[in-house]
Amino acid sequence: MDAGLQPKRVNGFEKWEAMKQGDHPGYRHEDADETGETSLMFAVKSQVGALAKALRIFETHNVNLQHIESRPSKQIVGDYDFFVSCDNSHGGLKEAIDDLREMSETLTILTRGPPDAPGAPTDDTVPWFPRKISELDRFANQILSYGSELDSDHPGFVDKVYRARRKEFADIAFHYKHGTPIPRVTYTTEEIKTWGTIFKQLTTLYPTHACQEFNHVFPLLVDNCGFREDNIPQLQDISNFLKDCTGFTLRPVAGLLSSRDFLAGLAFRVFHSTQYIRHSSKPLYTPEPDVCHEVLGHVPLFADPNFAQFSQEIGIASLGAPDEYIEKLATCYWFTVEFGLCRQNGELKAFGAGLLSSFGELQYCLSDKPEVRSFDPPQTGIQKYPITEYQPVYYVADSFQSAQEKMRAFASTIPRKFGVRYNPYTQSVDVLDNPTQMTRYTSDIKGEMTRLEDAMRKFSQFH
Amino acid sequence: MDAGLQPKRVNGFEKWEAMKQGDHPGYRHEDADETGETSLMFAVKSQVGALAKALRIFETHNVNLQHIESRPSKQIVGDYDFFVSCDNSHGGLKEAIDDLREMSETLTILTRGPPDAPGAPTDDTVPWFPRKISELDRFANQILSYGSELDSDHPGFVDKVYRARRKEFADIAFHYKHGTPIPRVTYTTEEIKTWGTIFKQLTTLYPTHACQEFNHVFPLLVDNCGFREDNIPQLQDISNFLKDCTGFTLRPVAGLLSSRDFLAGLAFRVFHSTQYIRHSSKPLYTPEPDVCHEVLGHVPLFADPNFAQFSQEIGIASLGAPDEYIEKLATCYWFTVEFGLCRQNGELKAFGAGLLSSFGELQYCLSDKPEVRSFDPPQTGIQKYPITEYQPVYYVADSFQSAQEKMRAFASTIPRKFGVRYNPYTQSVDVLDNPTQMTRYTSDIKGEMTRLEDAMRKFSQFH
Amino acid sequence: MDAGLQPKRVNGFEKWEAMKQGDHPGYRHEDADETGETSLMFAVKSQVGALAKALRIFETHNVNLQHIESRPSKQIVGDYDFFVSCDNSHGGLKEAIDDLREMSETLTILTRGPPDAPGAPTDDTVPWFPRKISELDRFANQILSYGSELDSDHPGFVDKVYRARRKEFADIAFHYKHGTPIPRVTYTTEEIKTWGTIFKQLTTLYPTHACQEFNHVFPLLVDNCGFREDNIPQLQDISNFLKDCTGFTLRPVAGLLSSRDFLAGLAFRVFHSTQYIRHSSKPLYTPEPDVCHEVLGHVPLFADPNFAQFSQEIGIASLGAPDEYIEKLATCYWFTVEFGLCRQNGELKAFGAGLLSSFGELQYCLSDKPEVRSFDPPQTGIQKYPITEYQPVYYVADSFQSAQEKMRAFASTIPRKFGVRYNPYTQSVDVLDNPTQMTRYTSDIKGEMTRLEDAMRKFSQFH
Amino acid sequence: MDAGLQPKRVNGFEKWEAMKQGDHPGYRHEDADETGETSLMFAVKSQVGALAKALRIFETHNVNLQHIESRPSKQIVGDYDFFVSCDNSHGGLKEAIDDLREMSETLTILTRGPPDAPGAPTDDTVPWFPRKISELDRFANQILSYGSELDSDHPGFVDKVYRARRKEFADIAFHYKHGTPIPRVTYTTEEIKTWGTIFKQLTTLYPTHACQEFNHVFPLLVDNCGFREDNIPQLQDISNFLKDCTGFTLRPVAGLLSSRDFLAGLAFRVFHSTQYIRHSSKPLYTPEPDVCHEVLGHVPLFADPNFAQFSQEIGIASLGAPDEYIEKLATCYWFTVEFGLCRQNGELKAFGAGLLSSFGELQYCLSDKPEVRSFDPPQTGIQKYPITEYQPVYYVADSFQSAQEKMRAFASTIPRKFGVRYNPYTQSVDVLDNPTQMTRYTSDIKGEMTRLEDAMRKFSQFH
Repeated sequence: MDAGLQPKRVNGFEKWEAMKQGDHPGYRHEDADETGETSLMFAVKSQVGALAKALRIFETHNVNLQHIESRPSKQIVGDYDFFVSCDNSHGGLKEAIDDLREMSETLTILTRGPPDAPGAPTDDTVPWFPRKISELDRFANQILSYGSELDSDHPGFVDKVYRARRKEFADIAFHYKHGTPIPRVTYTTEEIKTWGTIFKQLTTLYPTHACQEFNHVFPLLVDNCGFREDNIPQLQDISNFLKDCTGFTLRPVAGLLSSRDFLAGLAFRVFHSTQYIRHSSKPLYTPEPDVCHEVLGHVPLFADPNFAQFSQEIGIASLGAPDEYIEKLATCYWFTVEFGLCRQNGELKAFGAGLLSSFGELQYCLSDKPEVRSFDPPQTGIQKYPITEYQPVYYVADSFQSAQEKMRAFASTIPRKFGVRYNPYTQSVDVLDNPTQMTRYTSDIKGEMTRLEDAMRKFSQFH
Repeated sequence: MDAGLQPKRVNGFEKWEAMKQGDHPGYRHEDADETGETSLMFAVKSQVGALAKALRIFETHNVNLQHIESRPSKQIVGDYDFFVSCDNSHGGLKEAIDDLREMSETLTILTRGPPDAPGAPTDDTVPWFPRKISELDRFANQILSYGSELDSDHPGFVDKVYRARRKEFADIAFHYKHGTPIPRVTYTTEEIKTWGTIFKQLTTLYPTHACQEFNHVFPLLVDNCGFREDNIPQLQDISNFLKDCTGFTLRPVAGLLSSRDFLAGLAFRVFHSTQYIRHSSKPLYTPEPDVCHEVLGHVPLFADPNFAQFSQEIGIASLGAPDEYIEKLATCYWFTVEFGLCRQNGELKAFGAGLLSSFGELQYCLSDKPEVRSFDPPQTGIQKYPITEYQPVYYVADSFQSAQEKMRAFASTIPRKFGVRYNPYTQSVDVLDNPTQMTRYTSDIKGEMTRLEDAMRKFSQFH
Repeated sequence: MDAGLQPKRVNGFEKWEAMKQGDHPGYRHEDADETGETSLMFAVKSQVGALAKALRIFETHNVNLQHIESRPSKQIVGDYDFFVSCDNSHGGLKEAIDDLREMSETLTILTRGPPDAPGAPTDDTVPWFPRKISELDRFANQILSYGSELDSDHPGFVDKVYRARRKEFADIAFHYKHGTPIPRVTYTTEEIKTWGTIFKQLTTLYPTHACQEFNHVFPLLVDNCGFREDNIPQLQDISNFLKDCTGFTLRPVAGLLSSRDFLAGLAFRVFHSTQYIRHSSKPLYTPEPDVCHEVLGHVPLFADPNFAQFSQEIGIASLGAPDEYIEKLATCYWFTVEFGLCRQNGELKAFGAGLLSSFGELQYCLSDKPEVRSFDPPQTGIQKYPITEYQPVYYVADSFQSAQEKMRAFASTIPRKFGVRYNPYTQSVDVLDNPTQMTRYTSDIKGEMTRLEDAMRKFSQFH
Repeated sequence: MDAGLQPKRVNGFEKWEAMKQGDHPGYRHEDADETGETSLMFAVKSQVGALAKALRIFETHNVNLQHIESRPSKQIVGDYDFFVSCDNSHGGLKEAIDDLREMSETLTILTRGPPDAPGAPTDDTVPWFPRKISELDRFANQILSYGSELDSDHPGFVDKVYRARRKEFADIAFHYKHGTPIPRVTYTTEEIKTWGTIFKQLTTLYPTHACQEFNHVFPLLVDNCGFREDNIPQLQDISNFLKDCTGFTLRPVAGLLSSRDFLAGLAFRVFHSTQYIRHSSKPLYTPEPDVCHEVLGHVPLFADPNFAQFSQEIGIASLGAPDEYIEKLATCYWFTVEFGLCRQNGELKAFGAGLLSSFGELQYCLSDKPEVRSFDPPQTGIQKYPITEYQPVYYVADSFQSAQEKMRAFASTIPRKFGVRYNPYTQSVDVLDNPTQMTRYTSDIKGEMTRLEDAMRKFSQFH
């Protein structure tokens, strides 16, 4: 077992783990956003001057508003929903919230930051999460470690050219906005060579080691997205392809995201992807996710509807969940999307991206060395795991669909006072805590049933 | 009754009507696309070289391929779906189709163009429709009349400056591509004055004449999209707002679309909108839809979830429907989205955009002069109507939801051999004619039920 | 048009109509039950002595309890539901209700009887309806006119033997209890001859005049239930057959039921059927429903799933509905189950039992004499109709399924503060006004979806 | 641990186990029914003489028909379904089936009996299961051991009076028919004393050892069904109560049923219950289920909706399943309905009837002696267990609902070519292998959604 051959893992996880374990003492947790932002979602009765009145409350209490939106209410028929972000570092936010509570029919407080932040202490406070897909843009300001900051043991630490290149990529991601195309990158000959080495090696293993969903999609990526030994595929081409298949899209990421933010992206069927490639000196090793890991490991399965649904399920479960559940969900993610095995026609196969992008571990994981257990979120979610070696334990999913159903069952045990629905039309998250919305949801589902019935009737008729 | 005060109608309808009635003898129906394009959707068994093999068929028969896509099959688990567009003006398309039929597990032929076009004659041929939202880009090449071609009785016919301005707008739309922002337009002082005149007049009537959904949304458009007497709102701002509310978006349109194309847009929750404004010489009259009609008449209701669903329902019903049903659906659209009334708290109110953008007809329609009937798609769909005068008959919807259910019931009577589902994740239309897909659809709906159940359980617990 | 040839109509309707119109002045409306019964449904917290405590309230206020049941609550998890019937003719029921309200978490008051009855005046009071199938036994005491009371113009009025025979039948029904077999009757030779005359005549018309669902089932009734010219089928045999087909069952009825009671039976898929036959002197005429009308007219269609569902829909809509809506629903029933036409393959066909049991009207209704309109519950429900002649107007259903959907849409407009669900497992009606129950309902539906999904997956796999 | 104190188990299981283990060598497996009955379900096109034609096939081949039913087809719109039982001991059944296959659109062969029976060998043959609730009557002829046959070590073996009494009970059950009341039994003073001893002891443990669903229902059984120390409740009273709560009913059973038959009863929400009581000499011991075990152990939980659903789920899964899966399901039944534990508010509680009717094991199971695992059907279903001692391993359900969902997921892995639906209206099992039926099922579910939507809309409006 050669740990040096093992590509390290998914966005942020191992570093984040490391940080938690206290061995990154020097990390400065000084992100401005962390220390003081509160978002409020409230509904007020539709009446003349309602918006103006609500705004005056913030003014009176000297609260600085950073963003404000008003929409027809999804909570209460005939009301208006307001979404307000405010800086809670100064001003009387607590008092403003008290006043607001009086004029609002519902009020949800989302807070990012330390537990003693002004908006936080109340019982109703929910950890911040993005409500709509464009709010993922804000993650750029919340990265835990910028992509160009390399550790001293990083293979590229002393390579100035590589570090400059890493900065280029980080900057692309940092300035990326939802809805715009991901900039195309002209990879250097050296970069392409690194990619080619990995591509060539791994593709010899896929037919025998990867799950059938992976092998089904791979040739389409060759045809549609330029997956070739001599070409590093462009994220935007992949994103377009995935969008057609399952609605998943890619977003470039400037550095290390917190688990909470990373998982929240999945709720929107958005995968945060790196775009740079590992250092050419060690083509089979990388201490952090790179474009090879993402594109060869992750991308193919996001084209599978059941896998896509499963991934989104983890994401939706994470929205507003308490910290301890974020950790459990991240661990489930680790043992599935990153290191998952499944059983197909009686044989174990790999579907985790960490496996599918590691020549060494892909062989090891299907050998008789590691222990293999049945995927069971309550258990899997509390399993400890090493981050610098091959996994001693893998979890096996019967199918993506069954994994997804188990995930849902687990999600329903997460303490959260409201249900959550992702609305793919508006690409936003609806908080379900009101009969009005549930009635509308029921109508929508009934509508789908009507459409299914119609399709089945036609099928009966013509077959 | 002053016909001069009456703004003419929705995109394309009146001209299209006119053409059908034969009074546009000079119109040249020579659009190249019309005469010869066939799209093929087919599924082939997943095997090495499947794509190459399929392509060779076209080559052998000298068929010119314009576009080709391969995707994991939504029809048959483990197969590949191919989407191919080909020029059927020369080459042996029929023979190619015969060969293809042998190697495919399913094959759907979509044809645009005359009934004797090469792809058309077979029984299986279905009128062409867009499968995914980006294919709406193709409508630009299929417009029946370019937006800058004015009739001789058009108020701006002799105004060169106006005609040049119209060409500017038409060109913006002609070059517009899905996924890009709609160019912002700096309107002239004269244009803004024309808008202001209309805005001022109509807003005095809305509180008493418009339905409550309209009046509920209007103030939000003021706050979020700059609906003001001194400002013509920008389409992109409106589109963003609608996207948040219901997922509807706007697309600029370069001219007159056929009913089939226009309705197909609604299936994707896309509304084709003009961006130019009527001629300043007659601010209260327009022979065709303009930005005032779209923005004041149509936009507010697209922010209402039930209305949005109703509109999409018409669109979905239209996909691949026979010509006679397209006409019925267009007539239903006319009597609802354009000229619909509804009853609220015992009083008639207007919700049709043709009414809400016409000072004269908005008053007339609620008077006791016109006849008023209950909306009933099978009847409403065959009702004749004048296009240059106020309507003698209006149809009344009980609610948007009931209108939508009636629309669905009517849609199920349209002869079509398959069901159709809109997938908002992939923004594409799935043809449902296979047990695999219906199973997946059933799973999806069950998943929604699980989510609803979870939300309700939480609501029960905390209320 | 020979009114003499026309069999009169369904259970109770024409007499009830007549009574309403005041031409039965002598009818004594003195049923004891009418004047004073109140049923209470309430839920109390599960705790030691809860039942005893509740009972003491009635005792304290001198209220006479006629029936009491305690069950696990379907309203509130962990509570107990109580169902209590009490005599409100004396004692302090109002005071008892006030006390009860304090200790109960929900309380529903069902009252039968005059509006000034003790339980009635409060706003919450709902017209009484049976909660479970065994409560239909109580209708025997609520019949408006006993089956052996003949009008002076009745063909059997002076026939002592016939009147004695009618009493026999009425007594069977009066003593019938849910869950027991309907007594088999040995019909006399004369009775069988009367039946034979009608059977012979009508069966010549069915192939051309009856709807296809009727003609599909008829041969099965011949094979399974003894539908023959020389045999009057036994209600229990028919009931068993219907139970297998759709879950409908028959109950013998002792006389004229109110519309409210008659329709309530349909909610339980129970059809109240007469068992006697018309007077032999006039085989083609009957002033009231008899076994020929029920068995030839009604029975075949109750074996059709869509028709059964449609009938039950009317029944469920009626439970607890205000009087004016009961009348509308009874009128819809009249124009469908009794006198409905439908269009099949472009031709009008009869499905109403009043038509299918009348040689004269069955021919007349498909001729060009009567007016024919589209079935539309809001309109149909207020249509006036004659009860002693052929109908001048008939309503046409597109299909039983579309009729059922229209019925449901109409039902949702009935003012009632709660939803209602029929639970076929417990054969009882659940009042839905509580999140707990709706959550359970959602779970149940999700369970069904799971089963459907499983079946579809298997179908996909093996076809 | 005193095995003598441990009541033995549920209907048939331990004896069945014993038989499998070969220590009942003398048991004569000579039930006539076992050796030779085949049921056929087939659908034929609706046409004149279809039934007669089908019957002639059997006649031609000399096949003896025991039962025949014709119904409107649930498989194919407009067809007829036939259900035929025939004696396959002589005659050309195989040839008849071949002929039948030609005229039928679908054909299902259900066979009971040895694998070399005439109907059995074909691939399509499915193990026999009851299609409708009245067919449970046939189990009386299929019991493995008559209830009055006592083993030589049975406490009542030498007691002639007891044996005569046991015969009385067995005869009641043997002659019982579906739809009739279960005969009431006058228990002797001695029998009541035995019951009283057990009742008194167990009820002291319930508050602390039984799950909350059990304790919630118990007082209702006291009030409604006469659960008292001095009274053995009557099965019919209990059956009525359960019917109201969940639709479960009891049926008396004359002896030992096979697992297949016993589980099939649960699919119909029917529980086969003994009515006799154990021998008075050993009130705390019984080698087989008796009325104390059924009434104290099983009955309370059948009043809980989620438990009822869970039990039915096992039953539905068993219909037509291969023998090996019947064993797995019976084992799951053993570890839940008989010996299940659950976790409530962090504490283990008992819900299995084998525990709740055993003073000794009820205490033991919650002690720290046994091993406790999480309920997981694929694992639990293959766990070995002792039948004459306390269990060394128990399985814990999170909730009845989660247990039910796991059961469903497991059921979907049972190899069976069709889906199965229980229709509570007709109290019959529908085989789902045809688009027609699935379309109807979809419609039904949509109908339920409409009702849910209506209830939720009303709730939103009035709360």
